[in-house]
Amino acid sequence: MNTFGKLYSFTSFGESHGVAIGGVIDGIPPRCSIDLDRVQLELDRRRPGQSSVTTQRSESDRLNILSGLYNGLTTGTPIGFVVQNSDYHSRDYSTLERLYRPSHADYTYQAKYGIRDPRGGGRSSARENIARVVAGAFARQVLECEGIKIYAYTSQVGNIRLHSDYTRYNPDLIDNNAVRCPHPEAAQLMIDLINNVKSKGDTVGGVVTCVIKGAPSGLGEPIYDKLQAMLASAMLSINAAKGFDYGMGFEGCSQLGSEMIDNFRPGPTTSSNHSGGIQGGISTGCQDIYFRVAFKPVATLLQPVDTIDIDGNPATLHMTGRHDPCVLPRAVPVVEAMACCVMLDALLQRRARQ
Amino acid sequence: MNTFGKLYSFTSFGESHGVAIGGVIDGIPPRCSIDLDRVQLELDRRRPGQSSVTTQRSESDRLNILSGLYNGLTTGTPIGFVVQNSDYHSRDYSTLERLYRPSHADYTYQAKYGIRDPRGGGRSSARENIARVVAGAFARQVLECEGIKIYAYTSQVGNIRLHSDYTRYNPDLIDNNAVRCPHPEAAQLMIDLINNVKSKGDTVGGVVTCVIKGAPSGLGEPIYDKLQAMLASAMLSINAAKGFDYGMGFEGCSQLGSEMIDNFRPGPTTSSNHSGGIQGGISTGCQDIYFRVAFKPVATLLQPVDTIDIDGNPATLHMTGRHDPCVLPRAVPVVEAMACCVMLDALLQRRARQ
Amino acid sequence: MNTFGKLYSFTSFGESHGVAIGGVIDGIPPRCSIDLDRVQLELDRRRPGQSSVTTQRSESDRLNILSGLYNGLTTGTPIGFVVQNSDYHSRDYSTLERLYRPSHADYTYQAKYGIRDPRGGGRSSARENIARVVAGAFARQVLECEGIKIYAYTSQVGNIRLHSDYTRYNPDLIDNNAVRCPHPEAAQLMIDLINNVKSKGDTVGGVVTCVIKGAPSGLGEPIYDKLQAMLASAMLSINAAKGFDYGMGFEGCSQLGSEMIDNFRPGPTTSSNHSGGIQGGISTGCQDIYFRVAFKPVATLLQPVDTIDIDGNPATLHMTGRHDPCVLPRAVPVVEAMACCVMLDALLQRRARQ
Amino acid sequence: MNTFGKLYSFTSFGESHGVAIGGVIDGIPPRCSIDLDRVQLELDRRRPGQSSVTTQRSESDRLNILSGLYNGLTTGTPIGFVVQNSDYHSRDYSTLERLYRPSHADYTYQAKYGIRDPRGGGRSSARENIARVVAGAFARQVLECEGIKIYAYTSQVGNIRLHSDYTRYNPDLIDNNAVRCPHPEAAQLMIDLINNVKSKGDTVGGVVTCVIKGAPSGLGEPIYDKLQAMLASAMLSINAAKGFDYGMGFEGCSQLGSEMIDNFRPGPTTSSNHSGGIQGGISTGCQDIYFRVAFKPVATLLQPVDTIDIDGNPATLHMTGRHDPCVLPRAVPVVEAMACCVMLDALLQRRARQ
Repeated sequence: MNTFGKLYSFTSFGESHGVAIGGVIDGIPPRCSIDLDRVQLELDRRRPGQSSVTTQRSESDRLNILSGLYNGLTTGTPIGFVVQNSDYHSRDYSTLERLYRPSHADYTYQAKYGIRDPRGGGRSSARENIARVVAGAFARQVLECEGIKIYAYTSQVGNIRLHSDYTRYNPDLIDNNAVRCPHPEAAQLMIDLINNVKSKGDTVGGVVTCVIKGAPSGLGEPIYDKLQAMLASAMLSINAAKGFDYGMGFEGCSQLGSEMIDNFRPGPTTSSNHSGGIQGGISTGCQDIYFRVAFKPVATLLQPVDTIDIDGNPATLHMTGRHDPCVLPRAVPVVEAMACCVMLDALLQRRARQ
Repeated sequence: MNTFGKLYSFTSFGESHGVAIGGVIDGIPPRCSIDLDRVQLELDRRRPGQSSVTTQRSESDRLNILSGLYNGLTTGTPIGFVVQNSDYHSRDYSTLERLYRPSHADYTYQAKYGIRDPRGGGRSSARENIARVVAGAFARQVLECEGIKIYAYTSQVGNIRLHSDYTRYNPDLIDNNAVRCPHPEAAQLMIDLINNVKSKGDTVGGVVTCVIKGAPSGLGEPIYDKLQAMLASAMLSINAAKGFDYGMGFEGCSQLGSEMIDNFRPGPTTSSNHSGGIQGGISTGCQDIYFRVAFKPVATLLQPVDTIDIDGNPATLHMTGRHDPCVLPRAVPVVEAMACCVMLDALLQRRARQ
Repeated sequence: MNTFGKLYSFTSFGESHGVAIGGVIDGIPPRCSIDLDRVQLELDRRRPGQSSVTTQRSESDRLNILSGLYNGLTTGTPIGFVVQNSDYHSRDYSTLERLYRPSHADYTYQAKYGIRDPRGGGRSSARENIARVVAGAFARQVLECEGIKIYAYTSQVGNIRLHSDYTRYNPDLIDNNAVRCPHPEAAQLMIDLINNVKSKGDTVGGVVTCVIKGAPSGLGEPIYDKLQAMLASAMLSINAAKGFDYGMGFEGCSQLGSEMIDNFRPGPTTSSNHSGGIQGGISTGCQDIYFRVAFKPVATLLQPVDTIDIDGNPATLHMTGRHDPCVLPRAVPVVEAMACCVMLDALLQRRARQ
Repeated sequence: MNTFGKLYSFTSFGESHGVAIGGVIDGIPPRCSIDLDRVQLELDRRRPGQSSVTTQRSESDRLNILSGLYNGLTTGTPIGFVVQNSDYHSRDYSTLERLYRPSHADYTYQAKYGIRDPRGGGRSSARENIARVVAGAFARQVLECEGIKIYAYTSQVGNIRLHSDYTRYNPDLIDNNAVRCPHPEAAQLMIDLINNVKSKGDTVGGVVTCVIKGAPSGLGEPIYDKLQAMLASAMLSINAAKGFDYGMGFEGCSQLGSEMIDNFRPGPTTSSNHSGGIQGGISTGCQDIYFRVAFKPVATLLQPVDTIDIDGNPATLHMTGRHDPCVLPRAVPVVEAMACCVMLDALLQRRARQ
């Protein structure tokens, strides 16, 4: 189904090369002032064609709000929105009616539905992220009124990786470069790597790190909707995401308990934050929340690849056109958006019980 | 909230040292023959006191089914079940009314609810897993009729880790040792490590790998309830879980697209399975699904630890009693159970659209 | 599925002649003091064998609470509960394995599931109401702390009916007679009618009226979960319920707008309450909410009735045993319970948005 | 929240005098051929300005489909749609920023959200029905492939009412007159009544009867999502609806069990259909389903009415403009639409269990 969230939710629609991408945001608290320019700015961060390390599709992605605001304030009613599709090159995809791109959704959509829209990947295209980014940008403005700030950055591309301690990096530097990495030298290495990979028609993966500051205690349900479970579900719903961990995550599982324990101190505060700001599924309120999302290298290679056609016969696929050699730079705003949606949903769920 | 799943769901209740743990399984297809001895066997695999590497609490954990079966067959009505609590040592926890255990749920429950049941961790105890294991054991028997098999094993304890290629290991060997590791020599090293750590009052983390064989194509919703998102949410809802990845996961994100792509071949089949059996959020049906779950070292140390009391003053906590030095062996059946629940839910959702 | 409610929910299980009826209450606010004797009292009001006008099955229906309370207070964790089945007469139902009772659920359960538990109606039995009554009794105690009071009464049996203006009747008189009608003379006529009908092996239907006092404004979602839609769904989920209306309901639809309009007056208050306390799907907070539920005559006649057997052949059914000649008296506490659950759910949903 | 349905669902957005009304249909089965002209035809049936007995607002209500279809077939992905608002007369509503219309949603929206869009009733306007009608029209085309037909008609206006036996009336005659009543003489009386009431600036209520033919057995969940509970929730979510009953409903509750029982006969069939095609919450498959929905007289009178202003002071409201003197004619397609949505949802839920 195409709805995400429980009390703050959004429902999206749209195919890459259909008429439009859009959605409905539901459950936003009333009387919030929304700066639509800032929402558009988030869309622009996701937009293709920003730099040499992203696809050159020049989509304008202008947001149209159809409902839910009155004199610039939310009314508590749903926000309908639409972004028209334009500048798409259907000719790039003409052979895809007969061939399944390996490691894409072509084959599985066909298997699930017995039909698929082959134009630009149809519904499986990353253009669907537009709806996420809009919903996240609305949520962010509500969260900021509650003192909650969320940012993400590229912490790894290929084998170039930052230290796992996010406190070493200044979030103000993230948008200073094309890969959205707050360490300028590492950023340049990442850009060089991506350009090198791109020149060979290849692609490369990486990791996004996300930090949530100012979350109050008590967010998250203790058993099945643990805050980390909500975040994991959100992150693994992003195209190309392959993994999620929070706090010390996979790295911490080779450690001892005495190394990983976060002792409480008066405040309350803790001597360390290996837990990632969540204990027993619930935010502590006295620690930052942080997590990582792994993204695979994009499967759209500009090299000949072996595959099969819709009749099951062997075939060779020659992809052309404009594609991302690395999703990381444009994944950053999507990770932030999904984190914003989860946190607002958790905040509203907490209010219901207070 | 305490319900997991959409079309195949279960709702659980119970505190560690309350009257009972139990739950309600809903949505199980009718006319399935259920072998209750096999369900009990799964509970026994989760039970404490199995070996020197798990806690010595000797709970019998006898399953009582209260509804939903008639002449050994499911009727389509809900399965109510209860496991009585017994043999608990309330004295072990008497000081915990005043002190917050670091990196446990004591503080966050208090912050969220303004009240908590301090006996044995109350609702946050791993005894809640009993409900998951029962629901998973029922789901497994339905899945087996559909040709779907699920197994998990300990693939890492501390720094002792198996190769990431699960096909190297024979699942029949998993239950041959106390850590549930299919590689006998590695298993012995893991056991030695756990015993060593335990002797120092410390604990250690690790990783569980899970494999799903025989899943048909078309499972998983393509956008927000991607199959991997459902699995991630399920796994991150398990106590002490800190991370999830599937296919080549975090390891694959440092690779090139040309290395990670799974080319289609007639069959259809694929030349490799870096995707982990899921593409575009939907099972391919021609590959195994596999994923990893990271577990932190348990935070219950048998060493003095610094903390605060409920008035916010510094305090020292001296935990005694019987605790797991490593959750991995007992996490294996829980990971399997949650995977079974997710897969049956996805299967029923797919049926609705066929 | 077997869960009712969104933020305050309960999940039930159990068949009439299985081991037990029970359920799980989820989402109850923490730190509420619960008087379990009052919960048992509600169960006793639903219990069969209370009077000559109800079935003589003498079930004790003792409530066992398994979780969720600590020192008499709710902890915010789920309330598991069980009521053991006893004193059932399986012999009464022995022929029902082969015959479908007309206007019962036997045939439709068989058609839906391909299997059914024929003992006492199995899951379709009114014993399932036990779970509703328990969940409602917990909700009622929370609502009372918010100043919300809910009562219901029998307003019609056969052609004996009270005036539609509930303000004419004193709720303190409801439980003074066996039919739960607050008008003593009408109550006696209803009892006489039921006894007369019963003596002929026949049954009779009626109407329950329910009143909610003290509800704050703002309860109910304005579009699809209008407060009246939530109440209608709850009431039509009760066995034998055939209709629901609120405010002036069916009677009001033959009137003019000028007769039905509730003019606002300072306070705010209204000149009348034809709306039934809800406008645009949302409680006004300045009017009582009231509604009616129609119940059909029970289909279990103690007369020979024509039917078919499971092979489709004509047959005659001779029902014996102890059955309600009229469900109204025992439906009253069930209507109240469902109303309590809906109102608490709506209250929690409202809190999330404040 | 603004989503209706579980497996077949739709989410709507839009205010009466905002940019557009629209929504997202989710869960429609793939590979269904959709005739968009027929969808538009349903919208035209709901459209204002059709006749002298409805409002004269001349909205064109042209449907724009934005996604989810490929070569005229559903792809299993969500259907986004938008209907632009036009020809609205904001001047009609200018005084409503300060006055609460009695028995409308103005006051309760303000109480719930602390803000409201006063233009044309904002979100509470009946224009929201556009989304329902579109979702219903898509569902209807899927249902027809399964042999399920749904129709509704005006069975009562004021005190002019048809016989409760729907089989007496020919559905082909429904759209032959302005009130959508299949009995020509009664239709003329209804039209005369409405015109008479309208000439006095007053309004009048009535009843819609709906019939579902061809439903298979097994639709509806047996306990809380009984088919009648789903239908009741759907119908009571329609603006101005005040009541719902099915089968013999309120009328049947004054009868004896021996009069109301539907005896089974070989086929299987039944000797009568007092149950309304549903037993134990589940469709029988061998009877028509039928139900009634009561609609109050519209509260928008073209007479001076007493009310209060937003400061709580007494005021007199003089409504002008174009309003429906009776909602019944335009309620008929909305009742049908909601019935179609419920039935398709129930059908998909049933498929999941087969």
